[in-house]
Order: sequence, then C-alpha cells, then structure tokens
Amino acid sequence: MAGARRRLGTLLFPDFELLDVCGPLEVLGHLKDHFEVGLVAEQAGPVRSIQGVALVAEHDLDGCPPLDVLLVPGGLGTRREVDNVRLLAWLRARSEAAALVMTVCTGSGLLARSGALDGRRATSNKRAFEWATSQGPHVDWVRRARWVDDGKFVTSSGVSAGIDMTLHVVAREIDGALAEEIAWRIEHAWHRDPDADPFVEPRS
Amino acid sequence: MAGARRRLGTLLFPDFELLDVCGPLEVLGHLKDHFEVGLVAEQAGPVRSIQGVALVAEHDLDGCPPLDVLLVPGGLGTRREVDNVRLLAWLRARSEAAALVMTVCTGSGLLARSGALDGRRATSNKRAFEWATSQGPHVDWVRRARWVDDGKFVTSSGVSAGIDMTLHVVAREIDGALAEEIAWRIEHAWHRDPDADPFVEPRS
Repeated sequence: MAGARRRLGTLLFPDFELLDVCGPLEVLGHLKDHFEVGLVAEQAGPVRSIQGVALVAEHDLDGCPPLDVLLVPGGLGTRREVDNVRLLAWLRARSEAAALVMTVCTGSGLLARSGALDGRRATSNKRAFEWATSQGPHVDWVRRARWVDDGKFVTSSGVSAGIDMTLHVVAREIDGALAEEIAWRIEHAWHRDPDADPFVEPRS
Repeated sequence: MAGARRRLGTLLFPDFELLDVCGPLEVLGHLKDHFEVGLVAEQAGPVRSIQGVALVAEHDLDGCPPLDVLLVPGGLGTRREVDNVRLLAWLRARSEAAALVMTVCTGSGLLARSGALDGRRATSNKRAFEWATSQGPHVDWVRRARWVDDGKFVTSSGVSAGIDMTLHVVAREIDGALAEEIAWRIEHAWHRDPDADPFVEPRS
C-alpha cells in the first residue's frame, strides 16, 4: 500500500475509551502525507467518551466514504454496541472492504461480534479478556500479546497498547525509520516486542 | 486537596497536540469521584487538533467556571497563542486562582509566556526545548526530566510524558495505589522516575 494516501475511518460510539482513539490518531495524524484521518459514528456530530470528552464525528455510517483503514476502539460502550445489529453489519461490511483493520482494547470484542474476525488471530485488554473473547467463539484469541499482527487485522491489548501497535503498523506499512522518528517526536517509549506483555499476569 | 471533587479545565486552541490533552484526560477521566473534566477555549464548540481530530470545548474563556486544576497542552498552535494577549491574561489569572496547574509538551512555553511560571522549575518537550524555554527567561528550566514537580506547577516533557506526569499527580494528590491501579487498567507501562528522560540526548 506504500505511496498512496490512505483514508482512515475511526469508529466512535457513546462511552468509547478516549485514548483508544487518540493514541493511534496522535501517531497517524503526524503522517498527513500517508493518512487522511476521519471519525465516523451512527450520527455525525459530537460523541462523548466515557472520560467525558466529546470528539466530533464528521460522517454517519451511510455517509462515510470508502475506507482503506478502519480503526475500532474499545471502552464500556462496547457492552451496548455488541447488540447493535445495524452497527455490526456496518463493521462487517467495512472490514471486508478495507485493506487494513485495527482495534484497540475491547474494540476487538466488538469487531469479533460482527463475525469479521472469525478464523483470525487477535488479542484484547487483559482486564476484560473473558468478556471480549466471549464475543467471538471462532476467533483464535491470543492472551499474551501487546498486539497481534494477523495481516489485514491488527489488534492490540488495552488502551495504551494502541500506540505501540500503531507505531508497528507505520513501520510495516510505510517505513521503520519513520515509526522511530514519530515515537521520538512524541517522546513515547515504544514497546517494540508484540509478545512482551507485562499486563497478562495478575497484579502482584 | 484530598476528599473534594476538583474541577479540571483543559485549554484548547487551534492546532493543539491531541495526546497532550487526551493522555492526561484518559487518566483523570477514570477518577470521576475526584475530578470533573471540562474543556475551555476562546470560543465554545469544536476545536481542531493538529492531528485533524476536533474536541468540543464546553466553555469559552469568560464563561469558564472557577478551576481547581488547569491543564495546558502544547502543539504547533502554541506558536500563535504566545502572541494572544487575551489568552495570556486568562492563563495568568487562572493559574493564580487554581490550586494545581499542569502542562504537557510546549504547553509550558505558552504558560511561561504569560509570566505564570516565573521563578518556577519547569520542563518541556526536548524536540522544541529552545523555543519553549525562550518564552520564559525567568523560569528555571530543567532539561533532563520526564516531568518536573514544583508543587503547584507540574510540567511534563513531550506528548506521551503527560500520561506519566498525570499518574504522578494522582499518586501525589490522591493515592499511590490508585495511580498504580489506573496505570494497570489502561495497560500503561508507567515511567515512575521523573529524572529518567530517554529523550534528552540526540537520537543515535
């Protein structure tokens, strides 16, 4: 996919997790030559995160242009959205059409419920792992992982892991040196090993 | 300040840095018993980050209620705002009235320009350190620091450092165990040592 500017759509829903969205978009928003960032929700306009901060969705589901890349965040709102039949159908269809689909935290649970992750390797937040994995009985869930790269689908563990995953995607899709440059610029201590997961064990 | 629910105001301006705002608010937004999160800008309504994502400010400058805690982000927009006399006067007055003032990245440069940091110890992003420090000739700038705690004023280095600083503030103001719990919940590898700054040296 190197070369062309890719259209990225990030799904918002009420009570999404703020950093699940803003971590990856902090990284990709620095790469305006490569990514066009957009937000999409059932209704265009402000959508409030569980943290109380509202982001503005430019597109509603039907009005959203074709997406090269889809980003699905987690957050407590996923507990409602897994029963939102219209949204699940949209997620399934847009995942099929996109070249790359990323999830953060329990976003993989929501995406799994749509069926899009069936037969794929994926991970999720360790704090909500049982709930997330129960949404996708036909997914090959990986517990110990900062993120899982299964080609078209790249899924990360909880919240902060989304930044590490996104830097990996930049390295994979564009250039490793560029990913290092972005991590440096935002003073982020990038966890480069997807298999090193300090959050998989119970807290001591 | 333990016990009472504190009103936190986060300043937005055009071309603010997305994660400078959303990192700290991810942390504090989990603590609804302790913090009420609000956004303030010259005009209420959507304000676009340099990454292209718009957040919604609930308050304009005059309409903003008294703040216990003020958060000032950085981003390229600070280069304009250091000449915004009205905003600088607001920052100076609100800093004097608040119990705690936090900055991320070049937010310390903007705050320094208002005079509020005169005589204080502070840090900023290493990628824009010369610009930021030039805004406050009477500030005691600390180059090697993930964040600097000078009591009422707590300033962090670039972007991602704001999360580490905010966890420190939670530990200082409320409870260390709660800060650890939040870091765990958002799967953030907290950098607990404010003096350990891997970004102070030139990139190898």
